[in-house]
Parts: sequence; C-alpha cells; structure tokens
Amino acid sequence: MGDNTGSTPSWEDLARDKRERLAAKIPTEWRLKELPTTDSVIDFPRASGLLSATEIGITETSASSLVADLAAGRLKSVNVVLAFCKRAAIAQQLTNCMLEFDTEMALARAKVLDEYHAQHGKPVGPLHGLPVSLKDQLHVKGLETSMGYIAWLGKPATKESVLTTLLRQAGAVFYTKTSVPQTLMVGETFNNIVGLTTNPRNKNWSPGGSSGGEGALLALRGSCLGVGTDIGGSIRIPAAFNSLYGIRPCHGRLPYAGMANSMAGQETIPSVVGPLGHSAADLRLFMKAVLAQKPWLYDSKTVPLPWRQEIEDETLVKIKTKTLNIGFYETDGMALPHPPILRAIKEAVEKLKQAGHNVVPWTPYKHDVPYYLLKELDKADAGADLHRDISASGEPAIDLIKNYVYRHTKQLGNNEVWDLQTQKWRYQTEYLDQWREFEATTLGPGAELDAIIAPVAPTAAVRHGKYRYYGYTGVLNMLDFTSVVVPVGFADKDRDVPNTGYVPVSELDSDVQAEYDPEAYHGAPTAVQVIGRRLSEEKTLAIAEELGRLLHSQKTGPSVRAL
Amino acid sequence: MGDNTGSTPSWEDLARDKRERLAAKIPTEWRLKELPTTDSVIDFPRASGLLSATEIGITETSASSLVADLAAGRLKSVNVVLAFCKRAAIAQQLTNCMLEFDTEMALARAKVLDEYHAQHGKPVGPLHGLPVSLKDQLHVKGLETSMGYIAWLGKPATKESVLTTLLRQAGAVFYTKTSVPQTLMVGETFNNIVGLTTNPRNKNWSPGGSSGGEGALLALRGSCLGVGTDIGGSIRIPAAFNSLYGIRPCHGRLPYAGMANSMAGQETIPSVVGPLGHSAADLRLFMKAVLAQKPWLYDSKTVPLPWRQEIEDETLVKIKTKTLNIGFYETDGMALPHPPILRAIKEAVEKLKQAGHNVVPWTPYKHDVPYYLLKELDKADAGADLHRDISASGEPAIDLIKNYVYRHTKQLGNNEVWDLQTQKWRYQTEYLDQWREFEATTLGPGAELDAIIAPVAPTAAVRHGKYRYYGYTGVLNMLDFTSVVVPVGFADKDRDVPNTGYVPVSELDSDVQAEYDPEAYHGAPTAVQVIGRRLSEEKTLAIAEELGRLLHSQKTGPSVRAL
Repeated sequence: MGDNTGSTPSWEDLARDKRERLAAKIPTEWRLKELPTTDSVIDFPRASGLLSATEIGITETSASSLVADLAAGRLKSVNVVLAFCKRAAIAQQLTNCMLEFDTEMALARAKVLDEYHAQHGKPVGPLHGLPVSLKDQLHVKGLETSMGYIAWLGKPATKESVLTTLLRQAGAVFYTKTSVPQTLMVGETFNNIVGLTTNPRNKNWSPGGSSGGEGALLALRGSCLGVGTDIGGSIRIPAAFNSLYGIRPCHGRLPYAGMANSMAGQETIPSVVGPLGHSAADLRLFMKAVLAQKPWLYDSKTVPLPWRQEIEDETLVKIKTKTLNIGFYETDGMALPHPPILRAIKEAVEKLKQAGHNVVPWTPYKHDVPYYLLKELDKADAGADLHRDISASGEPAIDLIKNYVYRHTKQLGNNEVWDLQTQKWRYQTEYLDQWREFEATTLGPGAELDAIIAPVAPTAAVRHGKYRYYGYTGVLNMLDFTSVVVPVGFADKDRDVPNTGYVPVSELDSDVQAEYDPEAYHGAPTAVQVIGRRLSEEKTLAIAEELGRLLHSQKTGPSVRAL
Repeated sequence: MGDNTGSTPSWEDLARDKRERLAAKIPTEWRLKELPTTDSVIDFPRASGLLSATEIGITETSASSLVADLAAGRLKSVNVVLAFCKRAAIAQQLTNCMLEFDTEMALARAKVLDEYHAQHGKPVGPLHGLPVSLKDQLHVKGLETSMGYIAWLGKPATKESVLTTLLRQAGAVFYTKTSVPQTLMVGETFNNIVGLTTNPRNKNWSPGGSSGGEGALLALRGSCLGVGTDIGGSIRIPAAFNSLYGIRPCHGRLPYAGMANSMAGQETIPSVVGPLGHSAADLRLFMKAVLAQKPWLYDSKTVPLPWRQEIEDETLVKIKTKTLNIGFYETDGMALPHPPILRAIKEAVEKLKQAGHNVVPWTPYKHDVPYYLLKELDKADAGADLHRDISASGEPAIDLIKNYVYRHTKQLGNNEVWDLQTQKWRYQTEYLDQWREFEATTLGPGAELDAIIAPVAPTAAVRHGKYRYYGYTGVLNMLDFTSVVVPVGFADKDRDVPNTGYVPVSELDSDVQAEYDPEAYHGAPTAVQVIGRRLSEEKTLAIAEELGRLLHSQKTGPSVRAL
C-alpha cells in the first residue's frame, strides 16, 4: 500500500514519523527504563520514582483545589504544569494515550501566568494556571490535529477552536492532545498512528472511546480535567470504564465551533463537547469557567444560558430535605447489562432510597426506536466522509470501523434523512409526554421527576474489540438529555455471577450477554449515568454529586479500589 | 387533469367544495350585500354597518388591554370572541384571508371560559378568553390543516400541535386558521383552494407571505393577535406589508412540535413560530403567555428559557438613560431597497439619534454568502417534498413556486448538505466575530452593540407576483438572530422619487430596482426590522417598542395613515 522509496511517504512512514516526533517530546529523564509487565499499571506512576512527593501530591489533588491554590498564589502554575506533564509522560508510556504532547509550550504559558499573578496579585480567570488535557479534536495553535487520520498529520493548526480560546482566556494551560479511534465513531481507542490505547487498570481492557485517551490519562492522574466529545457515548464510555466522572452537556450548552470533527456538518445527532474529571465538583468548575466567558458571543450554536446558580440551589434544597424523585431502569429492553452493571444500578438505587429520596422504576420508552433511527442514520452518506479521510493517506480502515460504515453502499436521499429527523423529533416529544405523564400519575400532581438512573454501557470496562451496543448512551444523544456518569464500583467475579437463566430477546441481547466472563472482567470499573432533561446541567450535576457522595465513590487517589 | 364524472373528485371539485364549506361558515347576517370596489378596504369594516360601536371598540383595542379586561371580568369572552368573529368574517369577504373559520366552536369555548371565571373569580391563564388567529400550520382538533395543499383537505385534525395546546391552556380561543401560499415557501399568499389573498390597503398589493392570511386579517382588525411562522421572512414580510409588528423569535424559543410543515424534517434552516400583532407590547404578551406554560416540557427543541425580566429591565434602563448602541444598514450590498424603504431606515435612525442614543453604521458581513447558501439549500431535495404534496391531488404548482423549486432536477448528496451546513455555521461564527470586533473597536472596550436596524424587504407592500429578493429576511434565519418588525410609515410618490442615478451591481439588483413605481406603491406600508443576537427576544422587543414609540407609529386604529 505504501511507497517506501519514492518522494511521497507511505502512510506507514507518516505514522512512524509521528510516533517518533511524539516520543521525542518526552525528555530522556522522564523515560521509563522498563515497562511494567502487570496487567494493571494504575499504581505505577506513584511507584515509578520519577515523581517527587510534591508532584504526587499535586497530581492527586482535585482541579477545584488546585485552582484555589493557584488563584491564591499558594501554588505556581509552572510547578503544577510540570508535575502533570511528568505524570502524563508516564501515562503515555504506559497506555499510549496521546497524539500530541508539548511540555515546553505549556511551561512557557505557565510562566506567563505566574508572572501575571506576581504582577497583578490576581488570577487571569477561573482556571488560572491549571493544566487541561484536550481530546485531539480541539485546535491549538502550533499543534497538529490528526484525530487519528494519517492524512491530517503534519499540519499544525493556525486557528484555534472557540473552546480552546475560551479555556485559554479562563487561564487554562494546554500540554497534550489525547488519542482517539480513527474516525471517532467507536467506543474504543485505536488508530493507525499510535495504535492501541489501553485501560490503566488492565491492559486487556479498553479505556473506552472515542475520548479514550482522556480516559486513560485521567485515570493515571496525568490530567486533572480533560475535554471530550460525545455523539453516542464518547465522553461517558471512557468515564465509566476508567472510574471517572463525565458529563454529556446538551447540544448548545458549550461551544463546539471551530473544532475538527468526523462528518462535519452532520447535524441530525450533533456531537457535544464536555469535561471528564475526578469529581462532579471538578466538572462543575469546568462548566462554570467556560460559561463565564459567554461562549454564545463566539458560537451561535451555544445558547445564552449562564450557569444558573438558582437551579443548583433549588436542587441542593431537595437533596438536603430528602425530597428528590428519582426514576431508574436496569435494562432498556434491548440488551440486558452484565451482572456487575445490574449490581451497580441496585447499589445506586439502594443508597438513594436509604438516604430518604423517592426512587421509582422508570419504563424506558420504546428504546428500539432510537436504535433503529441511529442505525438508519449511519447510512446517511454510506461512510463517504469517513472513507475520504481514511483513504486520503492510503491507510486502511481500522477493524472497529470496518463493520460500522463499510457495510453500507447506498446513501440516503435528503427526503429519507428529513423523514428520520421528523421521526427523531416525534420520539423526543413522546419521551417528554411520558415524562410528564409519569410525574402526573406515578408521582402525583405538581411533583417533578428530578433524574433517572441508568446503565452507561451493558458492560464494565470492556475487553478490547468487544464493545457492541451503544443504545444506553445513544438514546440520550437522540433525546439530547443531560447525562452525568458516576463511578460506582468494580466488577467482582464472586458477587457478579453470570445470569444463567436469562433468555435473550434478540441476537444482539444474546451477543452482549455472551461477552460476560467473571474472570476476565474482575475488577473492571462500573458506573451509572444520572439523566436529566435537556439543558439541566446544573441540576443533574448536583444530583450526580450527591449520588457519588452516597456511594462513597469520591476517589482520593487513582489506586482506591472498592473491592 | 381532474375527473368530474367518476368517484374520485378532481382537485377543482375538492377546492370548490372547501370554498363552499368555508363560505357556509359565515352566517347569512354577516354576509356583505356588496363588495367595495375601491382599491383599499382598510376602512370598510368600521363603515360596513355590521359591527356595533361596542364591537368596533373591542376589535380596535389592544390584546394587552383585552386580556386585562377579561381577567378582571370587565369583559366577557363570548362578547370579545363574537366581535372578532364578525370582523374576521368581513375581512374574509374582503381579502380572502382564511382557510378555516368556526364561530360556533369559538363561542362554545368562550362560554366555558366565562363560566370558569364566574365560578372561580379568576382567569384560567394569561390569555383568558382572548381570540387568537392561527396560521394554517397549527393543528386544532376538529379543523382541517390544508396548508394550501388540496391533497390535505378533508382530514380534520385528531391531535393538536404543542403550541395549540399551550395557547389553549393559557386561555386563548381559536376561531380561524389563516391562508398561506401553496407550499409556504414564498413571500405572497396564493393557493389553489381559496385563491389570492389581497392586501387590505390596496387590492393590487400582496399582504406578503407566507403568513399572509394573518397579515390581512390583522390589518383589518379581524384579529388582535395572530400566529405565524418564518423560515425566510414569512412572519416579517406580512408584518411589514400590513403595518404590523411581528417577531421572528429564535429557533428553540417557542414550541414548533406537532405542527404541519413543508419539507418536514428539514433542519438546516429551521422554520420558527411567532406572533404578529398591533404592538410590541402585544407580541410580548404572547411570548410571556407561552413561556409561562414551560413549552420545554413538551417540545425538546424548545430551550428552557423563561421570560427573562431582568434582561428586559436592563434594556429599559438603557432606553431611559439614552445609552443604547444601535447599528444600521440601508442596503445589504445585494439589492438596494426602494426609496420608501431607504427613507424608513433614515427616519428610524434619525429618531433614535434625536432621542440621544448612539447610532452608527453597520457593515453587513458578506451577505452574498447566505444568499448563495440558501440558493444551494433550495436544491437539497430538488423540490421532491413539495412536488409530492402538490401532485397528490393533481393540482398544479402555483406560478410563484414554479420557478422556486421546479428549476432543480438533481438532489444534493448528504455530503453536499453537510458541507453547506458547515459553511453556514462558519458564516454564523464569523458574523459574531464581526459583532465583537465592532464592539471592541467602533464602540470601545466593554460597550455592547444592542441592536441593528435594517430593511425587512427591498420594497414596501409589494405588487402581486413581484416579490423577488428574500435576502434581507433570509440572512437572519441563517444567523438565527432575533428580529422584530416595526412599522414606520407609507410610501409617498412625492417624497420617494426613483433613484435614477443608481448603477445596479447585478441583474438581481437591477430587477429589484426596476420594480419601483412611485404611483403604484403610493401609500404602501414601510417598515424596518430591529435585529438582536440569538435568543435576545426580551431585549430586542424592548428596543423595537421604543423605536415604535419614537416613530409615533403605534397605531390606534386600522385606518391611521402616516401620510
């Protein structure tokens, strides 16, 4: 396929060149003499000997705490940035989680911010001096945006994405762009440039995708706050598989303008951008910091909705007075989750009930409809867009995507797409009808259903190549509901015994269930998502935070295991 | 084309049958013995002898005042509804502005509301007992929604549109659905069912379109508040051509779910729904009444944004302290408006300056781009959707639409549509860049550009069949900016002399300019639009109201002429 002799480099050459350039960005003194041979590397950074006690302390501190210290001048940005750069370099060597890395650029910016603080005695913004990792869709001047496409390599960005600009304005420091699967359109992370990204808790598991580089980097505390995107679960799956918090804000809440994307201009199911982090509070920090920059003045798709403190406060009152109304479902009727996930749901429900809240079963409304619509929409351009960017370099499509887009040969006509869009809107409206109906009948007059607890994926952190069913996340992209992932615990081969009596409702259901193997999944992170109505980020984050508190799943370090 | 003998009625039969059924809805005692022969019928209802002094009084009262009287029990809904039904019946006979009319249904509902008030001593909602006219896209149970398509006749709605439900919940009474052009996609009003809708001020002029039935009915005070939709100017053009106020709210502000539409599912340029009325205050009444019903609980496309009184109040402070920053443009560089429109802009600018506000020229940003994109998007399905609904009955396409959709033979592919959608978003972002740049440089640090004054159309109320250029309205649909139409005055053959020295920049420009004829347009309403950022309805309405006040164009009756 490639051409190793002529003047045009082969795709293999280009990929190798990129890997070499990326490796060279790690200073010699940060290179690992030997890579660990254990399945799990989650505890390795602490024990690596490369990080000072101070650096371990910094990298295991919450983003909220770091910005407070940076703003007060108790910490210098250069020290914080350096600590995260070192730990990120370790994470990269352990899990292959980056596509760009630039310590020099980061430290130069940190220095400017420290000088500003020294001179003015105040921070430039709410993220002053904080390193923030970015999925490789955001353009940062001078860095490449490849998005896993070899054809896109070698073109440093000359213009920044709106979110990049606003984060910078808020004081964030950029140091890495994290890996993604070729095309972004799958829930695992593999591309022909850097290859496979692994899950720090077990190299046999995927970190999820498409924001999988973020998942792995954050899990190893090579980042305290990262930016992902989500069109069918791409923020939530990596969050769930790495025991992290992640929010899928609704379309129009955060600015997406000027970002790279697959199938740019596809607006039927818009991809959204949002943070992944170690706590709900850190996600809130991010949301508030970006909204404080008034993103709607820069991106017309962002609605002029500042952080609504009054909604957060109302929710806190409900939490305090134990008056939340929470729905939940264990299965969407399409594919029964594995036993560890069913247990996670039960634990979440139990904790909320014990706390005194009203927790009632919610019947998922026709989840076969979004599944059908999403499958149809996949056909829209029969993969032409993805194919164009893959084939531009001569690289092959990765296995994960081959079955996804290359199975379609005929594009949909415009009227077919419009018809699907009409069906989608009708489905959204009917879902709201059921929500109101549920409130009026099950909860009683005037009562409000505050959130719904549901699985994120049918599996705990999945084995490589085995992610099969996106329905649990995808339905919320179709509904454009807010969703916050809350880590619950870890699969346990003794407690999570296979569901032997189960009669699958379909081949899909059977396939998903067959993937469960108590030994293979032992220790894999489990999570639930807290779902709220459209543009309910303030409320849904507050409820997710409370659920996390009740579950005692607020992690204090990367190695804390609930087993 | 039709079949007059067999069991399948021809399209002509179906249209005739509909016209007869519609005519039969007007009681004999409300039928005009003789139709006036004058060009203008604007003063006819008052002089018709069919309306009592009380009925004239009611129908010439503002909606805001009527709801106050209805809420206080000073007026009964049956009396208000009866007065408007009578006047609407007259308007129908004069201008052919309806597709549905049901006095009986309206009075029955009014009676129920009066009884509720008598029993509970309070209104059911903010529109208690108020008749509201609806464009024939909103479904009302029991009434037909034909939207000008003969194929859609004879199917009474069994399910209502969300907006219908919420208006009803707010207390509104429905009595008519107003006429539209076949397909909705043109700025005049003609269909094969009821034929041509005329402008009450001159039968040779169009009432505009596609909400043209609303325009004519409101101008004759057969309605005090009407609902239109706007995908390229369909609220604003009828408002401008009938000396009315009209608002194009932004996508997502008011609920569109469950409404009939042409090209349903087309989401590149979403059609929006909004009110037309006799004052900015009445438009505000409508907006607040609908938002008070929390439409976002019913339609997922509606953003959870209640009426933001604080934004209105901030704007009122700027108005009071004479500190508004207003931009304006007379031409978009694509087609120079006719002299009456240029004068309208000048008058608006002058009034604002005299009042002490800062009014500065705004350079329209590349208005050729939206013009090109809209023309390309027209091709998306090569008119297949429109053609399907036209041809289903065998009726021919109206002349106005023939050139619009039937000139395309090849549909765009999905990737071409995605590319246009990408270009659209980029254009929107660049427009915001210019807005911020203008604020930072022309206005100075921290200053805000509060609104932009611009033409609505290049012509005053246009002669039938002559509407040619939609750029002045269409650009705002593409940008998704808020726009409120403010009536200014009327064309004057003595003051508005042809622009003889003008050298057109294009054939379009030349064609538009050639249409001006001082005699033919003498007395035709002129207007401007007040443009605000996305989802700035509170602010933009307040500024529009102030501009109206400054222009002394708040009308007190249908016959007030500024000449």
